[in-house]
Amino acid sequence: MNLWCKLLAEFIGTSLLLASVVGSGIMGVALANGNNAIALLANAAATACVLYVLIELFGPISGAHFNPVVTLVMRMHGEIGNRDALAYVVVQLVAAVAGVMLAHLMFSLPLIQLGIHVRAGLPQWISEGVATFGLMLTILLGRRHRPAAVPALVASYIFAAYWFTASTSFANPAVTLARALTQTFAGIRPQDVTGFVIAQISGAVLGYAVAVALRVFAPSPSPATT
Amino acid sequence: MNLWCKLLAEFIGTSLLLASVVGSGIMGVALANGNNAIALLANAAATACVLYVLIELFGPISGAHFNPVVTLVMRMHGEIGNRDALAYVVVQLVAAVAGVMLAHLMFSLPLIQLGIHVRAGLPQWISEGVATFGLMLTILLGRRHRPAAVPALVASYIFAAYWFTASTSFANPAVTLARALTQTFAGIRPQDVTGFVIAQISGAVLGYAVAVALRVFAPSPSPATT
Amino acid sequence: MNLWCKLLAEFIGTSLLLASVVGSGIMGVALANGNNAIALLANAAATACVLYVLIELFGPISGAHFNPVVTLVMRMHGEIGNRDALAYVVVQLVAAVAGVMLAHLMFSLPLIQLGIHVRAGLPQWISEGVATFGLMLTILLGRRHRPAAVPALVASYIFAAYWFTASTSFANPAVTLARALTQTFAGIRPQDVTGFVIAQISGAVLGYAVAVALRVFAPSPSPATT
Amino acid sequence: MNLWCKLLAEFIGTSLLLASVVGSGIMGVALANGNNAIALLANAAATACVLYVLIELFGPISGAHFNPVVTLVMRMHGEIGNRDALAYVVVQLVAAVAGVMLAHLMFSLPLIQLGIHVRAGLPQWISEGVATFGLMLTILLGRRHRPAAVPALVASYIFAAYWFTASTSFANPAVTLARALTQTFAGIRPQDVTGFVIAQISGAVLGYAVAVALRVFAPSPSPATT
Repeated sequence: MNLWCKLLAEFIGTSLLLASVVGSGIMGVALANGNNAIALLANAAATACVLYVLIELFGPISGAHFNPVVTLVMRMHGEIGNRDALAYVVVQLVAAVAGVMLAHLMFSLPLIQLGIHVRAGLPQWISEGVATFGLMLTILLGRRHRPAAVPALVASYIFAAYWFTASTSFANPAVTLARALTQTFAGIRPQDVTGFVIAQISGAVLGYAVAVALRVFAPSPSPATT
Repeated sequence: MNLWCKLLAEFIGTSLLLASVVGSGIMGVALANGNNAIALLANAAATACVLYVLIELFGPISGAHFNPVVTLVMRMHGEIGNRDALAYVVVQLVAAVAGVMLAHLMFSLPLIQLGIHVRAGLPQWISEGVATFGLMLTILLGRRHRPAAVPALVASYIFAAYWFTASTSFANPAVTLARALTQTFAGIRPQDVTGFVIAQISGAVLGYAVAVALRVFAPSPSPATT
Repeated sequence: MNLWCKLLAEFIGTSLLLASVVGSGIMGVALANGNNAIALLANAAATACVLYVLIELFGPISGAHFNPVVTLVMRMHGEIGNRDALAYVVVQLVAAVAGVMLAHLMFSLPLIQLGIHVRAGLPQWISEGVATFGLMLTILLGRRHRPAAVPALVASYIFAAYWFTASTSFANPAVTLARALTQTFAGIRPQDVTGFVIAQISGAVLGYAVAVALRVFAPSPSPATT
Repeated sequence: MNLWCKLLAEFIGTSLLLASVVGSGIMGVALANGNNAIALLANAAATACVLYVLIELFGPISGAHFNPVVTLVMRMHGEIGNRDALAYVVVQLVAAVAGVMLAHLMFSLPLIQLGIHVRAGLPQWISEGVATFGLMLTILLGRRHRPAAVPALVASYIFAAYWFTASTSFANPAVTLARALTQTFAGIRPQDVTGFVIAQISGAVLGYAVAVALRVFAPSPSPATT
């Protein structure tokens, strides 16, 4: 398939994902009268819904990575070449920033801001490691056992991970970088980005290793169960 | 298929959609003790659920447009003729108003009211453009890649767009016009309708153009993935 | 299939449905600090989830009516005989009361109480008529167009109808009667039951008529879309 | 299939399940400003989402029990041998405790704590019996009538049971034991564990008996409806 077409899919998908993450956070806080649990409920549900939609729409075109660690694992797995993987990551980063700016534009906020939400320390990094580990297992085992359900699986997983990790589960370096450019609910301090990205890469590689181990021992189930 | 049957489907679907949008907004505000985030959560979830149901029920009969810009894009795409498209839009507008009146009737409110909720300005119009752009992509790419999932995709998308746009995503000229006839949570000032409709048409046409571009480059995926 | 088996399925399904409706209402009010929108959100979501499960589990055994007006419409449609229909309705009524008592038992409340929640007047009756009309359309058109999705369709519809009607959508005479036996969130005054039941029957018959009309004009879609 | 592979699947699944149950409870309470209904809504939704994902991912490998009473019923049903069943239960217990510790680690809390939440008395035990009865029916009838939907059915059932039982539906001895090791929202006093486990085993055996009774009378539906 044509690379430009794939990159257009990655661009639209990643930018709409970030616009949704940041926009629904802004809307949630604006309406929730200080009850951040309601804001996070709306934020998590909106993110999950839009992820489900975007992976259904763009999966058949680009694979719907929207996430540099997904592209990294697909590179390790031999499903994408070096050149395409690099192009994917560049487009994801640019699109993520564009999505944050689009959210700011819709909510009448300055286009570029620097995040002020402190997200650092071992518990946060473990959270991001666990979140990304689980995300990779979801993608890799989901593709194997129930390929048609992967969009719903990723969406459900991310909804849960918003709540069960202390970091609200960024689990995506492009998302992390872009969220350093907003002071709103979903933001993160720029100096905390590196720790998150290292934790995310570690979790993703561990998830890939476990998925490989499970495949080594387990024969494929019959197609009838998918 | 018989046009009257299709128009009956469009009438029932559009009126129940509006009764749900307006009715769940009234109920949400009545119970939420001033916490509008909870009201919007109920409003968005009820709207998404009813959209899912109505598109499943009436999709095989009329296509389940319920929305003049959907009918417009289907006309551009050559799937519906001029006469039928015009009849669809007229029925959608009448049904939308009837649905708002039905909600007022159920909640003991005056049948016809004029909206007082200010929704204007560039950020609102960009919001409506983005919302309708995404809706058209969801419908057009969803039909192509996962036709059986279109009702769930549209419902999920609208839930998310209620939260990630500043306008709560009307994304439908018939809905916009009818919501100018209620003073409740879901309302809009009559003088703000035109700006919304122009933004919606612009977003829809852009979404159609992107979907066409992606089809030009991308061959269809194998049916196995749907 | 064996009638006793069907009646056991109707009994377990209807009693668990009522235990869920009443129990989740009690839990919601107990935790929501007076914010009834949150209580209704939990109540509606729990009801929808349990409906989805019960219809999947018992649909292949008894048809998963759990509702005298559903049994009535199936009788009109010739899918069930007089004797079986009568047995279904008796079991549904007994099971509904048993389910309310089970909820009271789980929450340490007196087993039998009389409802005190006023639910009367034309707007309430119109609400019940609309709710039951939509429920019958959901069941009848859903069975025709997407039989495998009927459990999810009914669940989604009821979630929405809890919010878009002023009566929170009882839409079921057995549920209505049983909810007259609880003073908790989900209750209804005994003297208001008759009005609700008449409205529900009227809405169901109208829904059946519209479904028949749509079938007269519309040929069945191809099985490929289900 | 290789037993070590199955045990690895049970370990990862059970530990992520507990990390989600406990972690989302901590996050919910931390953000909800004392409104426990919102905390429970987040807790129930996150638990349901992660259950759906874990059963999809690990069902084809280990059967995705994650629960000693599920393993017990599968042993009674002859689907697993004595040695494997024992290994499953040991791994489930260890993994459940590990999952609670992981949640504490992510939220900067002492790794091991003793639960202080009183959960005892007949209504609580009836709640656990009902919850586990329903869970077993969901699994056993779901496998029979709609095997591909079992992950969604179990997730939906547990969401509802969090709300309609007075005990918030532990329905799992490994979960119960592990939740005795946290003082947070999801905790239980160690001395209340035995009563819960007895109630859970009773409910599970009753559910198995009803499922067997329904199979005795009911022939299997045609595969077309699954």
